[in-house]
Amino acid sequence: MSSAIELIKLAKSAAGSLAQASTQQKNNALESIARLLPERANEIIAANQLDLQRAVSEGLAQGLQDRLKLDEKRLNALADAIRLVVGLPDPVGELVRGFTLPNGLKVSETRVPFGVIGAIYEARPNVTIDIASLALKSGNAIVLRGGSAAENTNRVLVRLLQDGLASAAIDSNVVQTVDEFGRDGANEMMNALGLIDVLIPRGGPGLIQSVVQNSKVPVIQTGDGVVHLFIDETARVDWAVAIALNSKVQRPSVCNALETLLVHEKAAATVMPAILDALTQAGVTIHGDEKVAASRSGVVPAEEADWHTEHYSLDISVKVVSSLDEALEHIAKYSTHHTESIVTENLANAERFLAEVDSAVVMVNASTRFTDGGEFGFGAEVGISTQKLHARGPMGLPELTSTKWVVRGTGQVRA
Amino acid sequence: MSSAIELIKLAKSAAGSLAQASTQQKNNALESIARLLPERANEIIAANQLDLQRAVSEGLAQGLQDRLKLDEKRLNALADAIRLVVGLPDPVGELVRGFTLPNGLKVSETRVPFGVIGAIYEARPNVTIDIASLALKSGNAIVLRGGSAAENTNRVLVRLLQDGLASAAIDSNVVQTVDEFGRDGANEMMNALGLIDVLIPRGGPGLIQSVVQNSKVPVIQTGDGVVHLFIDETARVDWAVAIALNSKVQRPSVCNALETLLVHEKAAATVMPAILDALTQAGVTIHGDEKVAASRSGVVPAEEADWHTEHYSLDISVKVVSSLDEALEHIAKYSTHHTESIVTENLANAERFLAEVDSAVVMVNASTRFTDGGEFGFGAEVGISTQKLHARGPMGLPELTSTKWVVRGTGQVRA
Repeated sequence: MSSAIELIKLAKSAAGSLAQASTQQKNNALESIARLLPERANEIIAANQLDLQRAVSEGLAQGLQDRLKLDEKRLNALADAIRLVVGLPDPVGELVRGFTLPNGLKVSETRVPFGVIGAIYEARPNVTIDIASLALKSGNAIVLRGGSAAENTNRVLVRLLQDGLASAAIDSNVVQTVDEFGRDGANEMMNALGLIDVLIPRGGPGLIQSVVQNSKVPVIQTGDGVVHLFIDETARVDWAVAIALNSKVQRPSVCNALETLLVHEKAAATVMPAILDALTQAGVTIHGDEKVAASRSGVVPAEEADWHTEHYSLDISVKVVSSLDEALEHIAKYSTHHTESIVTENLANAERFLAEVDSAVVMVNASTRFTDGGEFGFGAEVGISTQKLHARGPMGLPELTSTKWVVRGTGQVRA
Repeated sequence: MSSAIELIKLAKSAAGSLAQASTQQKNNALESIARLLPERANEIIAANQLDLQRAVSEGLAQGLQDRLKLDEKRLNALADAIRLVVGLPDPVGELVRGFTLPNGLKVSETRVPFGVIGAIYEARPNVTIDIASLALKSGNAIVLRGGSAAENTNRVLVRLLQDGLASAAIDSNVVQTVDEFGRDGANEMMNALGLIDVLIPRGGPGLIQSVVQNSKVPVIQTGDGVVHLFIDETARVDWAVAIALNSKVQRPSVCNALETLLVHEKAAATVMPAILDALTQAGVTIHGDEKVAASRSGVVPAEEADWHTEHYSLDISVKVVSSLDEALEHIAKYSTHHTESIVTENLANAERFLAEVDSAVVMVNASTRFTDGGEFGFGAEVGISTQKLHARGPMGLPELTSTKWVVRGTGQVRA
């Protein structure tokens, strides 16, 4: 193909057949894809080696190299994840609402696929398989734009996806990659109003902001998490320590990990030392305000930028606040509206925090790590929406659908 | 204020208090606004006269002058419409889903206001009142940008809205107009990511496309309707005539009115003449393809542009097609995905039409005029969404809300 837009049009023209495919047909395609992943391990890993060699020669960061890598174990894990998607209920056709009007018209609202989903993401080939399998299960064609560092791997994976679809008699054009067109491919996707129904960016804040700022196609914004935990003056010490530690260190590289700890000044002497001891012992670097720095040694002075930062690492920003009001103001100013939690024994403070914090997920006395589709029982991870339109918080398969109103009459006209 | 962005920030900073306001408080504000409309009739009509005089001197089209005009009767109708909104259930706080996880975490998803809604619309001062009352009932602050032709009227109406809010002890900053900044005001709104949560354009296709193409803030696209009716070969003549006539002539100036009639060639001699006779008698001009033009006198030859046109008038485009497939292809090419209807007695054709037409509302044997929030029983008219994200079809108050996940724990951490 000579341009990305032609590939996008191919996906669009094939989308109708996928939208009408039965659950059985879609599951057959997913089973084929799961089977092909280990069968084609040699070919995939060979392509992946080319990408890895380039990554090494271009000096890609070690963490990014690791995310780029596929081996037999990871391929098997991807196949298992696809079989999990096979087991999830098909959202397409679900009746959302239905009623009969006084004039006898039967009105129903049912779930339908969006049509064509676009995904723009970084060089993580597992996302290619993850997001394609979720799109297919929800009846959506998918146009992929992965990071150029994974181009060889993604080319092989997209062919595999297309072969799996063809074996289940689904038009393989419903999966397309525009990787070969580089940045132009991403730009064409962001301008493809009327062809792509929704764009989902997955990756770091830079990628997401770029798509949100530049896309004419509607976007579901995911991921970005400057997550706060507020330790109220009445917080139980054991809960405060356990929740802060779990929120920060259980998996620091993900979006629901804790970034900023706010401590009520009346808890600064009673609760904070135990929390900071536990964090320090777990290898966390404390970036503290003046009061935190004055309270113990080894604290890195926090700068303004720290309050805006998603560390993705064993670093935490810590601030002492004079009141719940100050905590709420700080969160309103710096939060990315992902997840915020309060540790408290005071009912009024808990309810006020839950009501006034304007985030996708608000918690009382729980680890921020629970903001997760798997933990919520949704079965698969589409992403965590931090916007208010369409979907908010952990997204399951139903969030990859729209609805359609069906009206069945017997000649009714409007009076 | 020296800039639109300052007014938008004022609305944002006041939005939190409105989001927390009780249903009673919001209803009190709406009742005050309904009472003030007739009380201030003289002041409103005087301001409206200034706008009307300018409209006359600038040669504004007669239809637009009529839409611009407010008189005592229209003010009373606006007050009645607000009292209807008072009677609607408050969507804020509605429980969408709730469950307890195996670890004891109590998880619930409840409706919350978006925060700040932006409305960009043409010179129709009734929209100022309509959309503000719907926004207030759903707990949202609102930033208004009406057409400059209604600037004097809107200024008086916004002050009235603010006075009504203040009398119910709600921060009157939750209603703002950026009319004084002209086009700059609209541009600031479209760029106000993080301040305005959703933009709703209301007006003609030009306005809507401009907002969809240029806004960085998420948009709910409404209105635009190139609506199709397909007369299948098995259509009952009486239903076909009644539905075509009602869809086209009952109120031709609205988005759910019929624009294009597609007729199966086997119905061209049996059903079409009765339909076109009825339309002609009702004063409708027929823009027909060659087969239609050959079948009767008085047909204006249809041009390519007709198939794309929302006439908003007593004009209809008519085409004879050879099959359901050709009808579906025509609709896929020219529809704006608002409403399409089929008249048929054939079950398989009905089901195929309902399944394959990708529009917000699809109908069998019913007038397209039923695509309407009031007809669906939603009580108030926010607009009809023709996009797939967030809301599709007639929008009620719940579509002006987002949701928030609340997690209540007792010290749980993730294993």
